[in-house]
Amino acid sequence: MRKGSDLTDRLVGGDTSLLRRINAAVTLRALRDGQAVTLTQLVGDTGLSRPTVEGVIEGLMESRLVAEVEQSQDGGRQRGRPARWFRFRAEAGHSLGIEIGVHTIRVVLADLAGEQIGSHTRAVTETMDAEERLGAARGAVAELLRKAGVSRDSLWAVGVGTPGIIDGDGSVRLGTAMPGWTGLDLGARLRRSFRCPVLIENDANLAAIAEHWQGAAVGMGDVVFVLAGLSPGAGSLINGRLHRGFGGAAGEIGALHLLGQQATPERLLSTTGKPLDPLDEAAVARVLTLAREGDEVARVAMDRFLRRLVHDVAALVLAIDPQLVVIGGWAAGLNDVLEPLREQLARYCLRAPEVALSTLGEDVVALGALRLALDQVEEQLFAVDQPVSARG
Amino acid sequence: MRKGSDLTDRLVGGDTSLLRRINAAVTLRALRDGQAVTLTQLVGDTGLSRPTVEGVIEGLMESRLVAEVEQSQDGGRQRGRPARWFRFRAEAGHSLGIEIGVHTIRVVLADLAGEQIGSHTRAVTETMDAEERLGAARGAVAELLRKAGVSRDSLWAVGVGTPGIIDGDGSVRLGTAMPGWTGLDLGARLRRSFRCPVLIENDANLAAIAEHWQGAAVGMGDVVFVLAGLSPGAGSLINGRLHRGFGGAAGEIGALHLLGQQATPERLLSTTGKPLDPLDEAAVARVLTLAREGDEVARVAMDRFLRRLVHDVAALVLAIDPQLVVIGGWAAGLNDVLEPLREQLARYCLRAPEVALSTLGEDVVALGALRLALDQVEEQLFAVDQPVSARG
Repeated sequence: MRKGSDLTDRLVGGDTSLLRRINAAVTLRALRDGQAVTLTQLVGDTGLSRPTVEGVIEGLMESRLVAEVEQSQDGGRQRGRPARWFRFRAEAGHSLGIEIGVHTIRVVLADLAGEQIGSHTRAVTETMDAEERLGAARGAVAELLRKAGVSRDSLWAVGVGTPGIIDGDGSVRLGTAMPGWTGLDLGARLRRSFRCPVLIENDANLAAIAEHWQGAAVGMGDVVFVLAGLSPGAGSLINGRLHRGFGGAAGEIGALHLLGQQATPERLLSTTGKPLDPLDEAAVARVLTLAREGDEVARVAMDRFLRRLVHDVAALVLAIDPQLVVIGGWAAGLNDVLEPLREQLARYCLRAPEVALSTLGEDVVALGALRLALDQVEEQLFAVDQPVSARG
Repeated sequence: MRKGSDLTDRLVGGDTSLLRRINAAVTLRALRDGQAVTLTQLVGDTGLSRPTVEGVIEGLMESRLVAEVEQSQDGGRQRGRPARWFRFRAEAGHSLGIEIGVHTIRVVLADLAGEQIGSHTRAVTETMDAEERLGAARGAVAELLRKAGVSRDSLWAVGVGTPGIIDGDGSVRLGTAMPGWTGLDLGARLRRSFRCPVLIENDANLAAIAEHWQGAAVGMGDVVFVLAGLSPGAGSLINGRLHRGFGGAAGEIGALHLLGQQATPERLLSTTGKPLDPLDEAAVARVLTLAREGDEVARVAMDRFLRRLVHDVAALVLAIDPQLVVIGGWAAGLNDVLEPLREQLARYCLRAPEVALSTLGEDVVALGALRLALDQVEEQLFAVDQPVSARG
């Protein structure tokens, strides 16, 4: 069964008449803010006739997307027949955001209105092969659904974030951070576990979306999110929309240092002369702590690393000219990063952007994945400008 | 008088009724490809009633945008009253593209259909102040109009390209290549010379638009144009639309080398140990010629310069992930640039783009400026989706 028609079925009970679907979407829009409203208000808000709204509400109640509510208003009783009040049942369905990372699987669960219901984190190792990692992700999802008492059939959409270049169909074109990731058809593999749409996206891209949704970039449409690490990646919003690039590789700035014949970050940040393991975040954290405590060798290493980061961020800023740069990843723990970055960007960029630290912490990728899923849900629930066949 | 209403007047003779304007636009669209068509064909193509089309055609003939043509078809005479044939008079108005550069003022003139009628080039010097340069630009325009026998009142729109960061209102926020350019309200100054809209844009941005219009990037929506010079700048199209950046500074990648504490291009390309003058294209050309002739010192300088260019282009490519990179500016004369660039980008970029040389040569910026003006003209002539008040 096609996912799109599956969702449409839930909306209008198998009646795929375009007009009826549009009327349902218009009515749900008027209900989406969660407030209970009367039939009369709905007629006013939607511009539909009273009998049409009554029919639509009837259908939406059957598919359990709308509920009638008891209302004892302060304003006292209406004269005549008491008004009937209705509300959108955001609990009628759910969406999931999943991060599949090098060291962590993180899952967040929300209702149809995006209200977060729960989350679950599972540690994984950098050496796990793709099967083990996928198994861990499935396990984390099952655990969260069980804890929250939510049925898998109640899921309307799943968003997934992971490092690497992701093709439009959800396969991993290039993913060097985790064994077996390059070439994996991640979308197809995960779609077997769910009956709803599963959307795959690069982790830094989702982080940009998350910060725009509820983090440091709320209200700003031109944003670069830098997932700062030993191999930095970035995600960009342009005019409020994700910029994936022609081949999904936009923002993969990590390779830039290879060109300058300059040392890699894992060398720059080393205090021993031996390069750090690029995936060993704990070793990096030790250097940062030493630097903060005044250790001279660590401080010099940190300076070298910062210069590298400034260069990468400057390249992004000069190319894209965003309003705001958000710094995330483990470097976001460092207030020490912010000031040098601001100073250097102001010095070298023709128009310096604002610079802020991520406010969403370790949840940022999973939250972006959840937002991706919610966009899918909202398009199904509320969009009125496309024929059904163009979706899902 | 506002420019928008001025143009509307030309279209519908002062009758600003929205419906009449839309009907005129719909009819002009059906005529825009330049072929003569009959009234009956127009009725079919537009979906308007015959009396409406007759009224619209009457008005468009009065404003001289449409002409009746004598037609002696091979197919012989129609029975009854002979059909009347009409065509769009692309010669009813004109548009200009102007490049105001360091060494050159270049002006191209086209009719309303974008057919090029003439061009004029005037040499200027890098030391000219803003008044002299503006005077030279005005002189070049006057000379071209005189040669072409086109009246200034016949201009519908003017596009202008110039180096620097250009604000949305057409003032130069930062323009270090030419004396007195930073802070100049170029839009306001030039608008005094014309009674039509004057649009100002960064030169590399216009070059990207021009290559997309009729150069190396036809049919490609994700394009980076690199105006390669001692201080390289770039313009990007994303999904077929110009990406200006939040503050109009996108693509100003030239500052990147300052960060790496690496030498500037004018040092890299020097064969004497003394830096080249960044604006002295002739000195650069001499080094390139020497390198091609096998001069060892020049060859080493050229290699250094190429490495720099690769680094800048790689930064753009990693940030934006375009389908195609077009190399223009004086480096476009060098086939020597293309192969190393392709090779290095393929080596370092996670997804390597196609690389091509500009095909529009020295006209590229002026042609992009002309396209900008034509977009404005076409919006006035053919757009039916916006109220008149939102334009001009």
